[in-house]
Amino acid sequence: MPKMPIPGVKNLIAVGSGKGGVGKTTVSVNLAVGLASLGYKAGLMDADVYGPNVPLMMGINRTPMAYGERIQPLEQFGVRIMSMGFLNPGDKPLVWRGPMLHSVIQQFLRGVEWGDLDYLVIDLPPGTGDVQLSLIQTAPITGAIVVTTPSDVSLEDARKAVFMFHQVKVPILGIVENMSYLICPHCHERTDVFSYGGGRRTAQEMQVHFLAELPLDPQVRIGGDTGKPIVLRDEGAPYIELAKNVVARTEEVAKEEGPKIEIEE
Amino acid sequence: MPKMPIPGVKNLIAVGSGKGGVGKTTVSVNLAVGLASLGYKAGLMDADVYGPNVPLMMGINRTPMAYGERIQPLEQFGVRIMSMGFLNPGDKPLVWRGPMLHSVIQQFLRGVEWGDLDYLVIDLPPGTGDVQLSLIQTAPITGAIVVTTPSDVSLEDARKAVFMFHQVKVPILGIVENMSYLICPHCHERTDVFSYGGGRRTAQEMQVHFLAELPLDPQVRIGGDTGKPIVLRDEGAPYIELAKNVVARTEEVAKEEGPKIEIEE
Repeated sequence: MPKMPIPGVKNLIAVGSGKGGVGKTTVSVNLAVGLASLGYKAGLMDADVYGPNVPLMMGINRTPMAYGERIQPLEQFGVRIMSMGFLNPGDKPLVWRGPMLHSVIQQFLRGVEWGDLDYLVIDLPPGTGDVQLSLIQTAPITGAIVVTTPSDVSLEDARKAVFMFHQVKVPILGIVENMSYLICPHCHERTDVFSYGGGRRTAQEMQVHFLAELPLDPQVRIGGDTGKPIVLRDEGAPYIELAKNVVARTEEVAKEEGPKIEIEE
Repeated sequence: MPKMPIPGVKNLIAVGSGKGGVGKTTVSVNLAVGLASLGYKAGLMDADVYGPNVPLMMGINRTPMAYGERIQPLEQFGVRIMSMGFLNPGDKPLVWRGPMLHSVIQQFLRGVEWGDLDYLVIDLPPGTGDVQLSLIQTAPITGAIVVTTPSDVSLEDARKAVFMFHQVKVPILGIVENMSYLICPHCHERTDVFSYGGGRRTAQEMQVHFLAELPLDPQVRIGGDTGKPIVLRDEGAPYIELAKNVVARTEEVAKEEGPKIEIEE
């Protein structure tokens, strides 16, 4: 299948996970805002059309405008955003069959006026199903990030996601271990609620990079629920580190791949 | 669409969630084992074919035997189990399109020799997509449980799941709030990592029952990762309570629905 570049978009970063609820959207949101705060032009595409949590986590929800056939993304914290949540607000679930889903995601990728972006972060739906596969087979993805918690159950599914990206020859930027440990706000002792270190170990075993170890911090969840990403605060330092590592790995991957033709509008 | 009963199976309980990673499989596993330990004949069908974690959490993984055209479920802790993980062990992901998925799930439901069961617990895939919809439209589900964490992000998706069950007229047994709070193993102070009480509040708002509040206990995760469900230990008491509430609600729902024809083999 052809992978046409998206005009103006330099790097397309896919954030996936084998399992849901590991913090994939939290990582995507804070990565995009972190990239913007480092001075890069950043976009965020919420491809989780069934449970689009990006609007809540970014604290923005309006109907986007369309000029002609192009949809204008919304902008928040310096990030251009598109989400199914903007088009289907409220509690009614979308129950779409595969082909229709495929066409919506293509619309998001190519029918949105992304403009010039250094990084477009795509928050994939969790899992390794056909929606994920269609998307990564048709989009010119620069590199993928796999998010996991340290629990064996989550790692079991993260390995499946790594395999999926390998199968379709998408370079893996690395694995992120989320909810690594909790510092008790009362006694400041550490608890490894979901175990610890499995992300790094799995990265070594699968010979992919390890990008970050992100703590299970109640402030992260509060940031998500109130639409104020933690990366904008002092406690968000690990997410700034993550953004820097993603930039470095993207440059490495670009070198490995050799020179590319860029199409400018 | 016709909803043919499954011969020998008295009650079919679907466990769903709008969002992944909220502990749906943990609840399903501990509910099934809890029902068995209360003396009921219980089965567990893992319908999450992309990320089948039931084998790991139940500590069992062998290829099931087939007699003629019927597949024999495996048995562990008194529960009869069927999972895609038994048929596709290892890390290679399944990437199946919708129709094939549909046929596998129908096989699990009707091609497995479940035998006489008081309760067959179905661990649905997370979300409100077409796999979930096909299954709940074709299976004679007695009642559904919706699992959520107390975070707003999770509750946003849980409401979608409640709507989905309403739409297809599946009675809702109730909402379960998982990862309600953490008791620090060091200082025994409580931390509401993912907030608290949102499950009960959402149940009230949506006029459905509230079934249980389950703590975020590292022992639950360890039980899952080592294949020894927490419900078998003292710390698992909240899951025994959950199983009792599910039994009570199932009886209520059966009364509301009026007498049913049961087909015996």
